Amino acid sequence: MCYLCAMQQYPSKLLEDAVNEMSSLPGIGKKTALRLVLHLLKRDSFEVERFSASFVKLRNEMHYCVHCHNLSDTEVCEICKDKSRDGTLVCVVEDIRDVMAIENTRQFRGLYHVLGGIISPMDGTGPADLEIESLINRVREGEIEEVIMALSSTMEGDTTNFYIYRKLKDTKVKVSTLARGVSVGDELEYADEVTLGRSILHRTPFEQTLQR
Amino acid sequence: MCYLCAMQQYPSKLLEDAVNEMSSLPGIGKKTALRLVLHLLKRDSFEVERFSASFVKLRNEMHYCVHCHNLSDTEVCEICKDKSRDGTLVCVVEDIRDVMAIENTRQFRGLYHVLGGIISPMDGTGPADLEIESLINRVREGEIEEVIMALSSTMEGDTTNFYIYRKLKDTKVKVSTLARGVSVGDELEYADEVTLGRSILHRTPFEQTLQR
Repeated sequence: MCYLCAMQQYPSKLLEDAVNEMSSLPGIGKKTALRLVLHLLKRDSFEVERFSASFVKLRNEMHYCVHCHNLSDTEVCEICKDKSRDGTLVCVVEDIRDVMAIENTRQFRGLYHVLGGIISPMDGTGPADLEIESLINRVREGEIEEVIMALSSTMEGDTTNFYIYRKLKDTKVKVSTLARGVSVGDELEYADEVTLGRSILHRTPFEQTLQR
Repeated sequence: MCYLCAMQQYPSKLLEDAVNEMSSLPGIGKKTALRLVLHLLKRDSFEVERFSASFVKLRNEMHYCVHCHNLSDTEVCEICKDKSRDGTLVCVVEDIRDVMAIENTRQFRGLYHVLGGIISPMDGTGPADLEIESLINRVREGEIEEVIMALSSTMEGDTTNFYIYRKLKDTKVKVSTLARGVSVGDELEYADEVTLGRSILHRTPFEQTLQR
């Protein structure tokens, strides 16, 4: 680091460009970027080309499913294509990582709806930036019986939940949210009060816990 | 994560490829890779192309300086080209990050020699994999009067130091190493015994400390 201008001095412009591009990724600083770029430099040329091509290909050829807006290689995603899944049940999530997380539980056999974010005035994300209109339209088509809101338990998540709930009030669809409660494996004394309070309020009949 | 095969299920092959490429970088796991790739997906197409191109360009167009093997945009690097620098003094370092670190101190006006690694039998790196032969040849040309060994203070660094020292013994070049001692700003009680011992053994005349 130069003491005068607080700028790192690179021996080469090409290196500097590559480091700047790498450090434009979230959570990657200049030092980490330099380490990663020097690692790439040690690889074979065709490997670096494959590395780089994968991102361009992803960016240019990726589809968003026309029904649920999940990432997909085709117009309609594998989940929406799957006829064995329950089309009456739709789980509303923030992004595709949530789809992957829920899919990995193997507890849900319905379809999804990916909003592509949550309402967050601080970040300048309003309802119009999200796939809320298309959710309402999907519900209006009539096949869906229940919408499960699976958003983060934050202020923004709750705002989005409430916004969508109000939009869906006129339709006859049932709206539910994920159960809030003490995590499996958690010790009670370390659970926060809000979670513990909710878990008492929404207590589960003991017979239901025997089902799994 | 799938419970059966410990494999993450991605909704798209393109995404999976991009995540695999990203997580091939050292210190980037699958979860971080997915986060970074999804970030790239949100950017403009031309930005992703510029991002990717920078690495291919770096890999294919980067030169190693013919004299010191430092990274460079040209055949001979900026440091070796600089006529104001002292050509009788050569600092031997492991990789280009060390060149940048020493350059940033602004205390060294000689030239460098980048080995490209250190002797490490554990990693399968022998003397023949490093730029040691070219260092010997540079010394044999006769202009160099002192070689400063600036390698890490590890077993591998010491081995490499000793190997090069033996190779240079027959020439009339002076070989020195970086001073080992208590770091500037360190409290004495927290310094380890070896460092403290060395700092007593190689104590500096007080007048020399007044020079800066």
